[in-house]
Amino acid sequence: MHNLIEKMFMTEFKNPALESRHDSAVINLEGKKLAFTTDSYVVSPLFFPGGDIGSLAIHGTINDLCMSGAKPQYISAGFIIEEGLPMETLWKIVQSMQEAAKNAEVEIVTGDTKVVDKGKGDGVFINTAGIGIIEHGLTINPSSVKQGDVIILSGDIGRHGIAIMAQREGLEFETTIESDSAPLNGIVQNLLNAGIEIHCMRDLTRGGLASALVEIAEASNHNINIIESEIPVREDVKGACEMLGFDPLYVANEGRLIVILPEKDADKAISAMKKSEYGHEAKIIGKVTSENKGKNLYGFVTMKSRIGAARIVDMLSGEQLPRIC
Amino acid sequence: MHNLIEKMFMTEFKNPALESRHDSAVINLEGKKLAFTTDSYVVSPLFFPGGDIGSLAIHGTINDLCMSGAKPQYISAGFIIEEGLPMETLWKIVQSMQEAAKNAEVEIVTGDTKVVDKGKGDGVFINTAGIGIIEHGLTINPSSVKQGDVIILSGDIGRHGIAIMAQREGLEFETTIESDSAPLNGIVQNLLNAGIEIHCMRDLTRGGLASALVEIAEASNHNINIIESEIPVREDVKGACEMLGFDPLYVANEGRLIVILPEKDADKAISAMKKSEYGHEAKIIGKVTSENKGKNLYGFVTMKSRIGAARIVDMLSGEQLPRIC
Repeated sequence: MHNLIEKMFMTEFKNPALESRHDSAVINLEGKKLAFTTDSYVVSPLFFPGGDIGSLAIHGTINDLCMSGAKPQYISAGFIIEEGLPMETLWKIVQSMQEAAKNAEVEIVTGDTKVVDKGKGDGVFINTAGIGIIEHGLTINPSSVKQGDVIILSGDIGRHGIAIMAQREGLEFETTIESDSAPLNGIVQNLLNAGIEIHCMRDLTRGGLASALVEIAEASNHNINIIESEIPVREDVKGACEMLGFDPLYVANEGRLIVILPEKDADKAISAMKKSEYGHEAKIIGKVTSENKGKNLYGFVTMKSRIGAARIVDMLSGEQLPRIC
Repeated sequence: MHNLIEKMFMTEFKNPALESRHDSAVINLEGKKLAFTTDSYVVSPLFFPGGDIGSLAIHGTINDLCMSGAKPQYISAGFIIEEGLPMETLWKIVQSMQEAAKNAEVEIVTGDTKVVDKGKGDGVFINTAGIGIIEHGLTINPSSVKQGDVIILSGDIGRHGIAIMAQREGLEFETTIESDSAPLNGIVQNLLNAGIEIHCMRDLTRGGLASALVEIAEASNHNINIIESEIPVREDVKGACEMLGFDPLYVANEGRLIVILPEKDADKAISAMKKSEYGHEAKIIGKVTSENKGKNLYGFVTMKSRIGAARIVDMLSGEQLPRIC
């Protein structure tokens, strides 16, 4: 259904900003470059280990904005509230949003609330739209990816999806798996301040690390090779994935990104990323391995597994977890 | 519930942009003034005479932006789709949005779709956020309202609310009452181009003409007097209101505005408004009648009725129509 809808929207709304297919639209306002984005949040349950729908709605929109290198500044918040939602619940969510906004140094400047009858919603849905300023002169886009570039991942993967699933299904592990939900604008700002020539960035949301890499490989006409043993996955997440039949490569994250940049800048970039609270574990997980070899050979992601074999990493086929964001 | 929620948000998110309590936030981006706004649309039914949730979502956000005199430019669209919504329905809505955007010369540049399980939504909810540029140097705000100013209304009132109610309740009238849903940016741009010193503007949405006037009277510390016989209400709307027990003064509109400006500019303003398709019926309906006379005397709206009596127009007490936008 999602693909169908996307095609519908791309056909109907087509314009240069939309067609860039970035997480956010880049718009030109009389010489100033702005990023503009929107996301609705329908996560279920509303509260989960490591976050809630409110902080998630702030982090998600911040992250979409900063993937184009924008500095997120202003956020709008639209609430669709199901009649009967306890005011205390709403209050907790609103406070969580405000705290998340404050921590990430963005302002919620405009909002709206609508109430729908009981049974016509699900507690609360939140839409956030965001505006950021683009001050750099880089082209942060799959088209800038070059052979020899390194792929840097900001931290361990798979926690958000598993935290939601565990909560939803009432699963208990020895330790609580907390969502990685976090704002990534600090990491991006550190990279830009360090003068890193960022070629491409992606935050890892639905479809996980694998989907982000495949999208970039396809869009850039390059091949990407990653090394399984370099990709951090916490033991408890690994265990939960095995139990639930998920591959951590495809599980959603809400506070992780990959950055693709020239190998010569790698050390500088990693230390810049590590200065941020959410980039402590930044490391190289792979490389852009080959030039475009023609129409039939672009866009493959391969992974060298722990036992040394190479496998092709494909887009996730079949159902993704519903309502994880 | 709505008042409670508003108080909660104002307390938690407080900042200068939000506290202006305009329909849109005015933000300063390195010397450029922008308007930024958001609204979710949960109207039921999705299609009604004169419009649908798609065109409404575009018009509503355009209108919120231009009430500060901004020129609406970019729109985001977030869809929350209930599983099982026929794709054809969605397609019709998307096309209607695109057509509304094109007619009003705004671009939909970024979007998002989420799908929720059947029974957890209601067909589709749409959030639109919008960005506009403010190029004028006026302070369009209740604080600019002055004694002697005229109140100009752009057209007949009450049609949107009645169109929705009639559709929802299966009422049939001799003629179909169509919603007045329309973009108001053309009218506003004409006023600005004509060099009119606009003091205040309000689009008439929930709570209708009465609520907009009372809000301005209260916020400006002035009294406002309107003349019932000058307020256009179509005969069929009047009849439907009588039947349903509504007062047209309080019924929602989605394509009407009031403009408050100096009497000397009134003729020029009316002819500027009439140049727009949606301002043909623009006329003076009242005046700002008195200076603030101290704490206890501010903020009254009075209406001279057809039989010559004066009545106080108050905020709507009690329930408003649910889910009309």
